[in-house]
Amino acid sequence: MSHPKAVILASGGLDSTVTAAIAQADGLDLYLLTIDYGQRHAIEVTKASAIARWLKAKEHKILELDLRLFGGSALTGPIAVPRHTSLDDLQEGIPVTYVPARNTIFLSLAVAYAEVLQATRIYFGANILDYSGYPDCRPEFIEAFMNVARLGTKIGAEGAQIEILTPLIEMSKAEIILKGRDLDVPFHLTHSCYAPLENGQICGQCESCLFRQEGFQSAGFDDPACVQQ
Amino acid sequence: MSHPKAVILASGGLDSTVTAAIAQADGLDLYLLTIDYGQRHAIEVTKASAIARWLKAKEHKILELDLRLFGGSALTGPIAVPRHTSLDDLQEGIPVTYVPARNTIFLSLAVAYAEVLQATRIYFGANILDYSGYPDCRPEFIEAFMNVARLGTKIGAEGAQIEILTPLIEMSKAEIILKGRDLDVPFHLTHSCYAPLENGQICGQCESCLFRQEGFQSAGFDDPACVQQ
Repeated sequence: MSHPKAVILASGGLDSTVTAAIAQADGLDLYLLTIDYGQRHAIEVTKASAIARWLKAKEHKILELDLRLFGGSALTGPIAVPRHTSLDDLQEGIPVTYVPARNTIFLSLAVAYAEVLQATRIYFGANILDYSGYPDCRPEFIEAFMNVARLGTKIGAEGAQIEILTPLIEMSKAEIILKGRDLDVPFHLTHSCYAPLENGQICGQCESCLFRQEGFQSAGFDDPACVQQ
Repeated sequence: MSHPKAVILASGGLDSTVTAAIAQADGLDLYLLTIDYGQRHAIEVTKASAIARWLKAKEHKILELDLRLFGGSALTGPIAVPRHTSLDDLQEGIPVTYVPARNTIFLSLAVAYAEVLQATRIYFGANILDYSGYPDCRPEFIEAFMNVARLGTKIGAEGAQIEILTPLIEMSKAEIILKGRDLDVPFHLTHSCYAPLENGQICGQCESCLFRQEGFQSAGFDDPACVQQ
């Protein structure tokens, strides 16, 4: 049976996987899009493929786009990913792991994919609370981008309303994890670490690892990905 | 001597080359960005490199991004590029050469490049008159995109105003060509044809060829690119 289509920006991480599960629970067929952008943690691309299979996505596209050409981020350039002993260590402001215009680029690509599919729903795991430093996770950015999607596409010009749904945007990490547990999300397949060690183990000290650890602690159960390692 | 920086989306075509020359005449240093997106007329990427050298651009980045992964356009998929005997032949509406969300994607990438350069000016050769069928060439789209660039970037969040300048947007093709002549634009290096023949010659019948021919006729001089062929 065929359902309406949703495009999901699927990074292989925890947030985008919970977002995909929410789209599926909303009754939509999943079309996953993963961008292999030259990130240090390219292991997440492999994880995204496993997640796509687990979720029985209708399609999973992996697009190569090497943002190391521009650099300007700890995730794509020579700048080191900062390590911290706890979340209290994090500095104010936009962290060096911000990738210039990344979410603008990713949403543009999601819109292109959606337009070809004639899909009007894009699910995006942006979250403002944990990552308040990233400008391109804010609701006003998402709103502005929807306006661009409406004006800059054929389906938009023809009257379709492209929606960008961000169900996690105001959740805490613990709330995201609990929501994921309700939806049987395969946490063990997800990857969050920005700077995996050479042996593939997580670093445990980057901001993304710390937010994940703190999230599972607050949610009150063990991280299945860590249990497995 | 160093001037303020401008990022130019340089396709190797006539419009983007005139746009780059305008940015230079505005006193800016040129940082050219060409996207090799799997287009049929990939010859334009080579042309863009020659143009970058001619204009003495400070930098020319070529980014590979294979939009054939999505398809949905005569420029990237199996759909044939329509041929016409004259501009009167063109059908109403958005042509099949529209590439889904292409200008949204390209501007996103230009914003990323600009942000890394700490440049706040992006020049873009969009034109509404000749290509009125393309939704992502309209001034309201550009305006909406500037809002996204302001909200979705670190430099925007810190108060910089990223401008997207579209000096050609309301010019006719003849006016663009006359402006280019004033600025000594290397027309002979530019390429417009959407569906070049196997021997590299232009087809002379796609909409882009027809607009160019008509433009040079109205401007009253021969197209140096054709003279050379």
